[in-house]
Amino acid sequence: MIQALQTLLGPDAVSARNEDLTAHSGDKWFASAMPQAVVFPRSSQEVSSVLKYAHAEKIPVTTRGAGVGYVGGCVPLHGGIAMSMMRMNRIKEINPADGVAVVEPGVITGELQEAVRKLGWFYPPDPASLKECSLGGNIASNAGGPRCLKYGVTRHYVLGLEAVLADGTIARVGGRCHKNKTGFDLVGLFVGSEGLLGVVTEATLRILPHPPTRSMISAGFANFGAVAAAVQRILGSGFLPSALEIADKFTLRAAREYLGESVTPKGDAHLLVEIDGHEESVRSELKLLTKLVEEAGAVQIEAAEGEAGCERFWKLRREFSYSLRNTGLIKLNEDIVVPRGQLVQLVEFAEQLQAKHGFPVACFGHAGDGNIHVNVMVPNMDEQPIKERAEAALDELFKFVIATGGAITGEHGIGIAKQRWFADALHPGAMHLHHVLKDALDAEGILNPGKIL
Amino acid sequence: MIQALQTLLGPDAVSARNEDLTAHSGDKWFASAMPQAVVFPRSSQEVSSVLKYAHAEKIPVTTRGAGVGYVGGCVPLHGGIAMSMMRMNRIKEINPADGVAVVEPGVITGELQEAVRKLGWFYPPDPASLKECSLGGNIASNAGGPRCLKYGVTRHYVLGLEAVLADGTIARVGGRCHKNKTGFDLVGLFVGSEGLLGVVTEATLRILPHPPTRSMISAGFANFGAVAAAVQRILGSGFLPSALEIADKFTLRAAREYLGESVTPKGDAHLLVEIDGHEESVRSELKLLTKLVEEAGAVQIEAAEGEAGCERFWKLRREFSYSLRNTGLIKLNEDIVVPRGQLVQLVEFAEQLQAKHGFPVACFGHAGDGNIHVNVMVPNMDEQPIKERAEAALDELFKFVIATGGAITGEHGIGIAKQRWFADALHPGAMHLHHVLKDALDAEGILNPGKIL
Repeated sequence: MIQALQTLLGPDAVSARNEDLTAHSGDKWFASAMPQAVVFPRSSQEVSSVLKYAHAEKIPVTTRGAGVGYVGGCVPLHGGIAMSMMRMNRIKEINPADGVAVVEPGVITGELQEAVRKLGWFYPPDPASLKECSLGGNIASNAGGPRCLKYGVTRHYVLGLEAVLADGTIARVGGRCHKNKTGFDLVGLFVGSEGLLGVVTEATLRILPHPPTRSMISAGFANFGAVAAAVQRILGSGFLPSALEIADKFTLRAAREYLGESVTPKGDAHLLVEIDGHEESVRSELKLLTKLVEEAGAVQIEAAEGEAGCERFWKLRREFSYSLRNTGLIKLNEDIVVPRGQLVQLVEFAEQLQAKHGFPVACFGHAGDGNIHVNVMVPNMDEQPIKERAEAALDELFKFVIATGGAITGEHGIGIAKQRWFADALHPGAMHLHHVLKDALDAEGILNPGKIL
Repeated sequence: MIQALQTLLGPDAVSARNEDLTAHSGDKWFASAMPQAVVFPRSSQEVSSVLKYAHAEKIPVTTRGAGVGYVGGCVPLHGGIAMSMMRMNRIKEINPADGVAVVEPGVITGELQEAVRKLGWFYPPDPASLKECSLGGNIASNAGGPRCLKYGVTRHYVLGLEAVLADGTIARVGGRCHKNKTGFDLVGLFVGSEGLLGVVTEATLRILPHPPTRSMISAGFANFGAVAAAVQRILGSGFLPSALEIADKFTLRAAREYLGESVTPKGDAHLLVEIDGHEESVRSELKLLTKLVEEAGAVQIEAAEGEAGCERFWKLRREFSYSLRNTGLIKLNEDIVVPRGQLVQLVEFAEQLQAKHGFPVACFGHAGDGNIHVNVMVPNMDEQPIKERAEAALDELFKFVIATGGAITGEHGIGIAKQRWFADALHPGAMHLHHVLKDALDAEGILNPGKIL
């Protein structure tokens, strides 16, 4: 196999060295599995020739971007070929007149954002890992982030794709127009398909005018009910903020432990609101919002204007995550979603879970779209009894989420991590359609086998 | 067949009367074809039983909403059953806390908007026909409208669907969460599929906080180059208006003829800009925008604040369309899209087309996303030589659009009207994928046969 691949791609684009195999055996989740070969294609033609070969020989191919996923999505479970897209990392074009950027899948999300920003334009999707994740990975998982409340997820920015199908056929779908009703939504077929339906080799992305400025409010509340009510109040007053983030009691307490009392917001619940736009607008809206948040019963309010001020608040928000790590516990971070009206019920359920299983549960995240990171904090996952109890707690969490009409993943995808709950989360007709699509596009099952289905 | 259908749905939900067959034989486009029966299901169970029967008997089923499409999408080309969804017209739920509305497909778009508006919320997609088109039709064609520049098209508002597959299987896909990464994008499979892949029987739609106010600018420019430059200047200054509409010389001249010199904007090109948001923001942004538009060389500027003022400008915009009809000519309205940087080239091409074929060509529409309605004005389509010349002009138009990287339809869909150019507009791989999907989901080809493919 190695020889065949080397004939196709040249010796420098194929490796069977142990360190390369290991480096391409997993992502940020627990699972890993060794591929037999790693390939580094440099063009869609090369991707096509790898797939033609793998298809003929029925060899599994697991495509990967930067390998920073949270669900084991790029773990080559069935061995075979790990295909890294990281040598296809050119920004081919940024064209503000057309409002598009054309990229290869290995471009790092944050690098595209910076390049676009230099021209006064904006690529909104902002997954937490934006400094290290790739656009190809974002497309595979339809990545979101805090700004998605106002700006939408990755899908809303993909205008066109070049994708290579399981048998090596190259297809260009969508285009470079901001509106396009030419037939079926083939772009949607690939965005979020986690490497099971094809391999993206180029993407044409929509870019927006960059809002001239932004401002934020950081507010402490006495309890979670109050912060959830504040979220509804803000939205009910005609605001669609660029971010609306909340954190619960456990998160704040961990932050106090880690950061100190003085810099951690007061109260047992925290709210971050970001707005963006033209300067005068942002200034006047910040006043309105501050008043709203006061009236909603905040026990403490701070405001920040401009890039630097906002970055300080976002840094605090990131510190929440480090604070949880600092507890010495392992964070089982589940990116569940509930209908926004169920935020309080979610946190109450988390508290019950904590009482029942003895694991602390920390909730924080994107309140505006109900996408909350529920972190079940366990001492370790090596001791069997602890692991079993942790898995039981997760089972109960996902059962609750499904019962409330929620989604078992808002941003991370299914991969291996969420596979256990996938069938329960879907209507039988939707499960049927998953199989119909997989069979239609990859009958041999060579693309990322062992995942999702 | 009639008897079998009556057994399934009851006598009052099936008709073979000539007037019903005629009423369900076409839409707003030229083509029509008589079905053998019209059915009016009242539930997804009834839709399922019709499809099970039709699937077993291999009878064509053409689903239709309000019948106001522009491309013959719901013409029952192969006869069989015309399935009207207009008795499934309940708004089942509007829930601002969750930010969702749940509707049946026969709900009129404008009626949902009003119902949502009464609660202080907003359903943005605004096709020109919103007072008479149905949400099911909007979903089938992924309908857009002026506001889509800022707010996105119908797809961006569909969170979940219930759809009945060709064999009668009922599938519930997506959900009621604003973010959802549970498997493949099955919602996207149905949105925009023009009745070829399934029948939508329920939709869960995302609703947004209603922006408290809006304002508009109406500006005349000396020529089209100047207005296209103004569009780029506005976007380049960090504005993403809720609408950015332009009209060309021919449109304005027809308006002068119809409406009179005094109410028609001056110059040979026209710009409409709408912004929305909180009052103070809109007020200050209107000032900035007015200055920008002045600097961009407008020969005349008017501003309007609030609902009533804006409606006056939108009325003027609608009058442009009536003015073209008033010429006595037939409007071949093609909703093409070009990359935004090519707007001037499009209008120059339209002028060449006019010079070559002798038909006036009027261009107006959604400049912000490059989606321009190009109206080729012909005396009639009955005289063969005129019809042939008109078709030749359209062939040249679409050839140009495809060559610039444009799309042959931005909002209306393919249906029958755009079928001739469909293959040229697609990459062979994309055409292959259309067939793969159709074969996977409707192997017997009973759903809306004769369309798109």
